[in-house]
Amino acid sequence: MSRYAIGLDYGTNSCRSLLVDLDTGEELGSVVFPYPSGELGILTDPSDPNVARQQPRDYLDGMVAIITGAIEQARAARPGFDAAEVIGIGVDTTGSTPIPVDAEGTPLALTRAFADNLNAHVWLWKDHTAHAEAAAITEIAARMRPQYLAKCGGIYSSEWWWSKIWRCLKVDPDVFAAAHSWVEHCDWLPAVLTGNTRPDLVKRGVCSAGHKAMYAREWGGLPDVEFLAALDPALADLRGRLYEEAFPSDTPAGALTEEWAEKLGLKAGIPVAVGAFDAHMGAVGAGVQPGTLVKILGTSTCDITVLPNSATLGDVPGVCGVVDGSVLPGHFGIEAGQSAVGDIFLWFVNHLVPDSYGATVGEKFTEMERRLSQSKPGETGLLALDWNNGNRTILVDVRLTGLILGQTLHTEAHEIYRALIEATAFGALTIIRRMEEHGIAIDRVVNTGGLSIKNATLMQIYADILGRPLQVAASEQTCALGAALFGAVCGGSVSLDEVQRNCCRVRDLEYRPIPENQTVYHEIYALYRTLHDAFGVAEWQGRLSHVMKELIGIRQRQRA
Amino acid sequence: MSRYAIGLDYGTNSCRSLLVDLDTGEELGSVVFPYPSGELGILTDPSDPNVARQQPRDYLDGMVAIITGAIEQARAARPGFDAAEVIGIGVDTTGSTPIPVDAEGTPLALTRAFADNLNAHVWLWKDHTAHAEAAAITEIAARMRPQYLAKCGGIYSSEWWWSKIWRCLKVDPDVFAAAHSWVEHCDWLPAVLTGNTRPDLVKRGVCSAGHKAMYAREWGGLPDVEFLAALDPALADLRGRLYEEAFPSDTPAGALTEEWAEKLGLKAGIPVAVGAFDAHMGAVGAGVQPGTLVKILGTSTCDITVLPNSATLGDVPGVCGVVDGSVLPGHFGIEAGQSAVGDIFLWFVNHLVPDSYGATVGEKFTEMERRLSQSKPGETGLLALDWNNGNRTILVDVRLTGLILGQTLHTEAHEIYRALIEATAFGALTIIRRMEEHGIAIDRVVNTGGLSIKNATLMQIYADILGRPLQVAASEQTCALGAALFGAVCGGSVSLDEVQRNCCRVRDLEYRPIPENQTVYHEIYALYRTLHDAFGVAEWQGRLSHVMKELIGIRQRQRA
Repeated sequence: MSRYAIGLDYGTNSCRSLLVDLDTGEELGSVVFPYPSGELGILTDPSDPNVARQQPRDYLDGMVAIITGAIEQARAARPGFDAAEVIGIGVDTTGSTPIPVDAEGTPLALTRAFADNLNAHVWLWKDHTAHAEAAAITEIAARMRPQYLAKCGGIYSSEWWWSKIWRCLKVDPDVFAAAHSWVEHCDWLPAVLTGNTRPDLVKRGVCSAGHKAMYAREWGGLPDVEFLAALDPALADLRGRLYEEAFPSDTPAGALTEEWAEKLGLKAGIPVAVGAFDAHMGAVGAGVQPGTLVKILGTSTCDITVLPNSATLGDVPGVCGVVDGSVLPGHFGIEAGQSAVGDIFLWFVNHLVPDSYGATVGEKFTEMERRLSQSKPGETGLLALDWNNGNRTILVDVRLTGLILGQTLHTEAHEIYRALIEATAFGALTIIRRMEEHGIAIDRVVNTGGLSIKNATLMQIYADILGRPLQVAASEQTCALGAALFGAVCGGSVSLDEVQRNCCRVRDLEYRPIPENQTVYHEIYALYRTLHDAFGVAEWQGRLSHVMKELIGIRQRQRA
Repeated sequence: MSRYAIGLDYGTNSCRSLLVDLDTGEELGSVVFPYPSGELGILTDPSDPNVARQQPRDYLDGMVAIITGAIEQARAARPGFDAAEVIGIGVDTTGSTPIPVDAEGTPLALTRAFADNLNAHVWLWKDHTAHAEAAAITEIAARMRPQYLAKCGGIYSSEWWWSKIWRCLKVDPDVFAAAHSWVEHCDWLPAVLTGNTRPDLVKRGVCSAGHKAMYAREWGGLPDVEFLAALDPALADLRGRLYEEAFPSDTPAGALTEEWAEKLGLKAGIPVAVGAFDAHMGAVGAGVQPGTLVKILGTSTCDITVLPNSATLGDVPGVCGVVDGSVLPGHFGIEAGQSAVGDIFLWFVNHLVPDSYGATVGEKFTEMERRLSQSKPGETGLLALDWNNGNRTILVDVRLTGLILGQTLHTEAHEIYRALIEATAFGALTIIRRMEEHGIAIDRVVNTGGLSIKNATLMQIYADILGRPLQVAASEQTCALGAALFGAVCGGSVSLDEVQRNCCRVRDLEYRPIPENQTVYHEIYALYRTLHDAFGVAEWQGRLSHVMKELIGIRQRQRA
């Protein structure tokens, strides 16, 4: 008799499933469902580039498609496959992605009254409309409750729970008033599957609560009423309609309802794990352990590591979150990340790469990689900042933008693409350095996510810039895999250790730094860091006239 | 009986002619000849983007094509036209564009031994290989002969005569040794037409000599032997094989030879004027007078004005040159400019604009202009530096590069194009401010060159940023027109005043600044100037963290 679990991974533009054999690690089915609404699944507002919303119906339509699809694939792959041997489901999503819901737990966007109102839809993680609210929360928390801030890197972000809800209250009081409660996307889906959508029944995950909603056991859960009232009395009032306790994902959110079991072709009553964010589940799926940094390289990135919760860990300025139990039970989950990585490349290829590189986005990337892989570090003379979507770690500031310098009259698109890749790698190095400076040792880096699998050129540049070997997780779906493992574990019949051992592997191909590239990048990183601090740190004061000249010098040396 | 003159304008990528009626100003013929060699007429070196050379044969092939073509057109336009009524020829070229020649005056590139040697070819104005030599000349002149530097803005440029010749001596001693002398492109062509190519017979123009070769009457012509020997004894030795005196363009370089007269269909013996640079001739063709700034908007730009040489004029730091007689006889010619303007737009459209804007370069520009003309200043949130080819005025530094900041994940190509236009306008404003700070009044701005005629969107942005009305010269060929006027004048039968009055007009359409745009650009210029000084001025020290945030603030305000 086999044991299977299903993980569901809800990303920015699509959701996907993974059906895994918990004893062999074999992945028997995986289906992707692109969200049909908006532009690549995102509802935007032409008058404000900060708006990013989603349609909750897309999530439900996707749910059926990706689970039934995965089961079908498993039947094809393994003739004896029996869906009744699926012992649990786990779910991860992006976040903080709050959904305003009514008293029944129905998203307002699915009610007739608010079907056309963007503010009643899902506030996607990368919605940046709430920067003023984030700044105000940071300022008020610094004054009233510095301990709240310390746990999330010292600066509260516009991408997070309270900023967005407060923003909604300010710009659309009708939506705020109609929302009986707010539910994280990752909590809503398990609630739907288990019939527990009524806000007081939704089992909330500690991952989203701790990393984004300032929840911690040590101060009694969510921020206290006095603090919330200092933001707005309506938020203090909302607190009572949210939740008291949040749980790690080895806890069940409930049991699969008859109705959904029938729709999905699964056994009713199997446990559905408490939801968590994609990156945290992905880290588990990639085999995170103390000393291992998991980098999830996608449209944005997350860098996740863990430390036993018996360790002493001071505050890590600019590192977005340290939350007990958010990744592995019994460990601090430490989360950092970059607000845009793949998204920067997609922006570039969609808006600034001529068709001479190819007719499609895929062809353009392939041709640019072919051409840039023939050049050496520094040959472009270019240097970029990876801030087209702000900087999450270590500056925690969405009011930052992209920068490219070093262009001549000969600069070509693939050279700029290289500079953009390098910029994201310099950003990644800045995060690792900040962790190490605060006593979080990184012995091993395991990468996962689309870019780590598809872009060998990028991976080599990352190895050269990070200055350490980079492993790649074997699974192409580490987030969904992590979710599946929690789906299995939350029923209590199997341990996380055991399923991680069975299912989390790395590939044979490892990217090792090339010493001469490392040397050049070491020089260029110093210039990156100068620009980073000059444009990103309010207190910075200094000189910049050497930057262009040193880049020209490096270019000449490398081309010679 | 009519009086005509022919002007020849040798640009960066092509040469063109203009045949003008000196009494009516009517332009009866004009032909363009794109240089056939290299990439758009420029010989490049893939290993060094600073290299820009040309093939002198292209100039001679062009000469025949554009003169005979213009005569043909004149015959078609005016049945009674008689080429014998052409009373003179004038020539302008880019510069400093020195040509190494043998003892007969033959360019080394046209000799068998050096036909394949890039260093034996024409060193085009925008060749930037000699930056180290330029820096050394600046340093040695500052110590030994500060007066030399004062006349050329305080910094000697890699684009100029001595930098390039010294560079050749260093990197290719064989070419240097084989070169009996060096001749500016603008001096070589009149010498060819008049049979005076032997180096001691070539009549050198004061425009190129004064602006680029540190020539001035007050110190006895070219830099003295002691100074040149401090650079390299071989340069001191070369001095004796160059020239003692240089002349303004109302002087004849000689008379058209029988051989060329026959080839061209003109009367032998008509005078050919001493050559000058395109911008200086263009300023004359656009009607330059004291108080009038002529802006020649092309691949690069030149800003030219004049001041009676009876006026007192101190040094103007960073303004490339103040030379008596280089524009109008009896006036100081004052020259500034931007190393790349149209070239930046061409670089952008050729390398970074997707085909969704159009299939051709022309279509892409049209569509980008259509889209950007619908937006307001500041809406892009972008800010650029116009330094892809270095900064000629006021920083006089080729070791600078382009910069674009403010990109989000939504930034589109036409928005960047707008930011690039704005950057060049901010650069233009910086030049005007520098002139005014040093007592050179600018009452009137007349524009000429391709961009001033073809790009109304750009012209309106320029008017908004420069904050003054902009006129456009009526002639599409002001450089060639100025050359033709000197061709007419150098024979002595007609005055420059008279032919300028007859031939130099402005168009009815004038671009007037829009007050609300001016206000926004005033704010953005302060940020431009901060970046300009931060990256361009060695002594600058300060803060930059406000730049991205202020741009975001302006963007939000303008979009609202």
